[in-house]
Amino acid sequence: MSLQETERPSLDLRSLLAPRSIAVVGASADQGRHNGRPIANLLRTGYDGRIYPVTPREGDVRGLSSFRTVLQVPEQVDLAIVLVRADRVLGVLRECAEAGVRNVVVNASGFAEEGEEGRRAQEEIRSIARQSGMRVIGPNCIGVLSVTDGVLPVTTLNVTVEQTPGDVAIVSQSGGMAANIFNRAQADGVGVRAALSLGNEADVDVADAVAALADDAATETILMYVEQLRDIPRFRRAMARVRAAGKAVLCVKAGRSDAGMRSAQSHTGAMAGAFAVFRDLVEGMGVRVLDGLDEMIDTARIRQRFGSVAGRRVLVVSPSGGECGYVADLAEESGLILPELSEGLGQRLGELMRFGAPSNPLDLTGQVIGDDALLDGVFHAIADGPEFDAVVVALPTWGDFDSQRLMPRITAAVQALEIPAVVTAWSSHGLTEWRDGYLRSSPLLAFDSPGRAVRALAFAASLDGVGAASESAARVLSPVHWDAEAVRDEASAKRWLHGLGVPVSEELVLPLGESEAPPFGYPVVVKGVAPGVAHKSELGLVEADVRDERDFKRAVARIRQSATVHAVDLAGMLVARRYAGVELIAGITRDRAFGPVMMVGAGGVLAELLDDTAFLACPASPAQVRSTLERLRITRLLSGFRGGRADVDALVALLVRVSEVAAGCPELGELDLNPIIVGEPGEGAVVVDALVRYRRDDRE
Amino acid sequence: MSLQETERPSLDLRSLLAPRSIAVVGASADQGRHNGRPIANLLRTGYDGRIYPVTPREGDVRGLSSFRTVLQVPEQVDLAIVLVRADRVLGVLRECAEAGVRNVVVNASGFAEEGEEGRRAQEEIRSIARQSGMRVIGPNCIGVLSVTDGVLPVTTLNVTVEQTPGDVAIVSQSGGMAANIFNRAQADGVGVRAALSLGNEADVDVADAVAALADDAATETILMYVEQLRDIPRFRRAMARVRAAGKAVLCVKAGRSDAGMRSAQSHTGAMAGAFAVFRDLVEGMGVRVLDGLDEMIDTARIRQRFGSVAGRRVLVVSPSGGECGYVADLAEESGLILPELSEGLGQRLGELMRFGAPSNPLDLTGQVIGDDALLDGVFHAIADGPEFDAVVVALPTWGDFDSQRLMPRITAAVQALEIPAVVTAWSSHGLTEWRDGYLRSSPLLAFDSPGRAVRALAFAASLDGVGAASESAARVLSPVHWDAEAVRDEASAKRWLHGLGVPVSEELVLPLGESEAPPFGYPVVVKGVAPGVAHKSELGLVEADVRDERDFKRAVARIRQSATVHAVDLAGMLVARRYAGVELIAGITRDRAFGPVMMVGAGGVLAELLDDTAFLACPASPAQVRSTLERLRITRLLSGFRGGRADVDALVALLVRVSEVAAGCPELGELDLNPIIVGEPGEGAVVVDALVRYRRDDRE
Repeated sequence: MSLQETERPSLDLRSLLAPRSIAVVGASADQGRHNGRPIANLLRTGYDGRIYPVTPREGDVRGLSSFRTVLQVPEQVDLAIVLVRADRVLGVLRECAEAGVRNVVVNASGFAEEGEEGRRAQEEIRSIARQSGMRVIGPNCIGVLSVTDGVLPVTTLNVTVEQTPGDVAIVSQSGGMAANIFNRAQADGVGVRAALSLGNEADVDVADAVAALADDAATETILMYVEQLRDIPRFRRAMARVRAAGKAVLCVKAGRSDAGMRSAQSHTGAMAGAFAVFRDLVEGMGVRVLDGLDEMIDTARIRQRFGSVAGRRVLVVSPSGGECGYVADLAEESGLILPELSEGLGQRLGELMRFGAPSNPLDLTGQVIGDDALLDGVFHAIADGPEFDAVVVALPTWGDFDSQRLMPRITAAVQALEIPAVVTAWSSHGLTEWRDGYLRSSPLLAFDSPGRAVRALAFAASLDGVGAASESAARVLSPVHWDAEAVRDEASAKRWLHGLGVPVSEELVLPLGESEAPPFGYPVVVKGVAPGVAHKSELGLVEADVRDERDFKRAVARIRQSATVHAVDLAGMLVARRYAGVELIAGITRDRAFGPVMMVGAGGVLAELLDDTAFLACPASPAQVRSTLERLRITRLLSGFRGGRADVDALVALLVRVSEVAAGCPELGELDLNPIIVGEPGEGAVVVDALVRYRRDDRE
Repeated sequence: MSLQETERPSLDLRSLLAPRSIAVVGASADQGRHNGRPIANLLRTGYDGRIYPVTPREGDVRGLSSFRTVLQVPEQVDLAIVLVRADRVLGVLRECAEAGVRNVVVNASGFAEEGEEGRRAQEEIRSIARQSGMRVIGPNCIGVLSVTDGVLPVTTLNVTVEQTPGDVAIVSQSGGMAANIFNRAQADGVGVRAALSLGNEADVDVADAVAALADDAATETILMYVEQLRDIPRFRRAMARVRAAGKAVLCVKAGRSDAGMRSAQSHTGAMAGAFAVFRDLVEGMGVRVLDGLDEMIDTARIRQRFGSVAGRRVLVVSPSGGECGYVADLAEESGLILPELSEGLGQRLGELMRFGAPSNPLDLTGQVIGDDALLDGVFHAIADGPEFDAVVVALPTWGDFDSQRLMPRITAAVQALEIPAVVTAWSSHGLTEWRDGYLRSSPLLAFDSPGRAVRALAFAASLDGVGAASESAARVLSPVHWDAEAVRDEASAKRWLHGLGVPVSEELVLPLGESEAPPFGYPVVVKGVAPGVAHKSELGLVEADVRDERDFKRAVARIRQSATVHAVDLAGMLVARRYAGVELIAGITRDRAFGPVMMVGAGGVLAELLDDTAFLACPASPAQVRSTLERLRITRLLSGFRGGRADVDALVALLVRVSEVAAGCPELGELDLNPIIVGEPGEGAVVVDALVRYRRDDRE
């Protein structure tokens, strides 16, 4: 790592997103071509800074005087948009650096996503950036746009021109997805601060962008679409700034599936790791991971409008009984709660309503059509009470007649509420056009699909307190000593762990021929010691439930006989105390991006049936381990299921220690602890079996 | 049950949906009122039959001569729309019956959904219908509409008027939801046959409607939104006709959540049972249950266009690399498969494509813009091969420039395909209007959201072969003898089951003081016999792992000592063989709608952690039991997990027999078999513990 790398300047959003001067290198006057589009976009949105086309051809470009090289431009340039082909990019970048350009966007593809030669060229881009201090976005991207600053120098015409500013920022490696998210967000009424497409991230990466947006006064919510995080430590620091600023990062990850991973790699050269590891580890930093763009944008809408939603208790209210039931089901299935009305509220509503008994969901019935006072009365009664965290107003597919009579009254009633309210109003082509237009220009927050509305509301209600566990500091150990000679098999692996403070099962190895009683009493497990022999159980070399001395002698005899039958050389007998309790498994792997990662999950037969695992970064703090255990289904086994309880404190301490060992020992490749057995409170937790894999290349 | 009930005529869709004459009882000229709307709707859609307003007021209604009672109408009426208030409905119905009206729609609410008095009035509607043979739809409904016949006599203005006919029929108890589904389906381009809102179902119910639509030549797919099925045997017969006709029923159930159940009850008086029972039992009949209306309509669109989708193998193709990855992830997460390209296809595509290596998803890159031959070439290569069951063409949010250049070429290329192809094209307000309009009038099947497209495609690919197990006949037993005297406790319950052919654990009861060795050998379980004493384990009255005679004597002594400590009178010692194998639980309950229902699930600790249960109707055939077991996660334990295998044949035979007992014994209230232990193949399956509950009211 060069000196320049550690000293890279932080991304300056002012010069990048609100540049006073933009050079467009390789500019064309033809907006049908990609290199004609940045200037076309700047002109059609009335950019009020200075534009300098740079092109070897003589004359002006769309009325703007052009220059042969960026070195000729008569002022220091805030932003250069580089539109030349891949083979000319490095030359142009060197000129930009020489000219003192502050930020460059490189549009061309043909770098790391296309093999070794491209990868080397991309490294060269990086090195020009690091040596000059100039920040480079791309290559293989459409660039950046800022709605709050009214600057649209992107290389695509596929962005809306009538733009709504707001506090939501978009960061995406894929340029196409950056545009999709921007367009969909704007169409759904989400005001946008800026959108940054980062492409292959030769220099500026997601961590840079998130860090800058964490410090950006105009940004409250960051929507992230990523194929890969290339620098986890810097991203972790950026997330600490996001949390400190009380902002939120919502994320959809590309490459969750096999086909998606193939795609990400050929698209921006991203190497996607296992999605479950990504999700658990970035959620541990406070990122909220969602499955789709619609959910992400819907949640951003709610957050943009209401800030935080205090909780999950909602009232569903509708003029249609059918709609009431439909939305109530979806709401509860999404994790919202529909509490019954309090007696007082029920009474107040009962006095207003002629039909039926007031309940939640609240069916206003046809009475709403004739009775002007009903809506106001009902919403006034709700607004007064602390019973709900939000209201969902569910409207059917209404044509003009009902809409024109009722929408103004509904709007007034909803606006009188002090708690968040979302309206769901299905659109239908040829029927609801009047209402669709009315809602778009109304102050109401309206969703076209009830399912999307309640899922987003449930998600928004879960945003507070995210990543709290990540604030607790994990302990960093000095390097842990590794002794490849000493760690040869299960027994020595456990001794090594024991020496590092990890509790392991009590056991001893008896030389062959000896058969003294174990000092820790019965029951015990007896195993033939046979270095290098796998599948000991299948070979009859394990006796799992030895209860007394008679049993013990028989067990030793049986194992020796099995060894003879299978021609296994025994080095002795391992006698281990037999533990009872809840079985878990834990493992350490080294993730390409995240470094040492710990997996924790259900053990025994549950491991394979439940698919119940969670991941966390090493080293981990006790709070982080606890919050990870709470994600597991088997957390019920640990904390009071069937009357039993387990020594969770001991388990947490054990896992914390394992995570510290993993972080402190670079030679440790993989570690499988299977099982860990957790006794009742006070009984402790022990590693019963351990497998260690040495890491040949400790400098990976 | 009266004679009339069994003889009820089947629903005649011709006179109901294509009536030549319609009487509108309680008609008004004011379309602002509900009783003005049926005639307004008929007039604005140009109904070409005869309309007879019936009203006590003199004069005509909107130019139509009116009559004081339906008895004065000068011809036999196919359909009467009754719009009077609840308290006048019975009088009008009697007149309709006297006049020989074929079908009546009753709009008024205020019947079973509003308590006992309304329930009695609703019973009276039913009895008028049954005695006259006249079919009554409602009360508490908006009526019926037929798009193929152009008849729109519903009581709401909230339906689209420009209608698209097709082969999808809609059945809903809720009138509001019938309208929502109809409008959304039409807006999404789904051609509709008819929509029936059935309200409280005093006479015509979902079973009638589905049976009639099964026989209706114009219907291929039925969309059902139900709060309750009121007559399971008739619905089961209707589904047999649906399956025989090769049609499909897609269903969303209202009342899945607690709040949804409250709503259904107050809405149409429906009593929703447990959703899991409903889902499993109707899926067993061939209904496909979905979570939301959008998914239901999307699936109907694909089925309407392509008939069946042969399988799950899809090619995702896009001009945007980002879109490729996004859609690929969603597709695989939805259960679709993106196989890699065959070598031959990869080679053919490689010859056409200048950038990147062809893969699945297939990124057409920017080449698609300049290279006119690329699209045709790619789609021609795909159309030739048998590698895929469907193609997903994923398009970004394109503005006019790209859309106008590329959409016609994409359309031509997609149309040349012989396999199903869906287009996903995100809309964005202010950007994609041209394309949205183009797609709406194009022959392409386009979705606004990629997630919805791939989920619907995956669901459509799973429709074939649905309900095959339900074609296998279950055996019906003659009534099973019940002996309340003999069945007193666990041991006698098992003896009773044993006598009926259900395998139970080998066991014997020893009088106190005797302690002979069990004839079936060790290991055994020993329990103190103490009728009426629950929680035997907690009282120390169970010894679960007795391995030899010495163990046995100690166990008996310990149980006697525990009994003394807890002052329990022992009647003897139950000695049972101890079985090893996979633990399951099974239970019988009596569902209000479905009758005797069998639950099967994971046993032991898994039962509470996995939430792994499935339900089926009693009696059940072996094929039905097998297909139910395959829904369970623990099916992996039964069939070859960890090298082990279980005696599934014996388990199936056991469960079939239990289901026959449940169906044949009206006095059996509940039965808990916990656990059933399934040994290795050839070892059998046995009920180890059984609890029987007597049913006091066997005529419920």
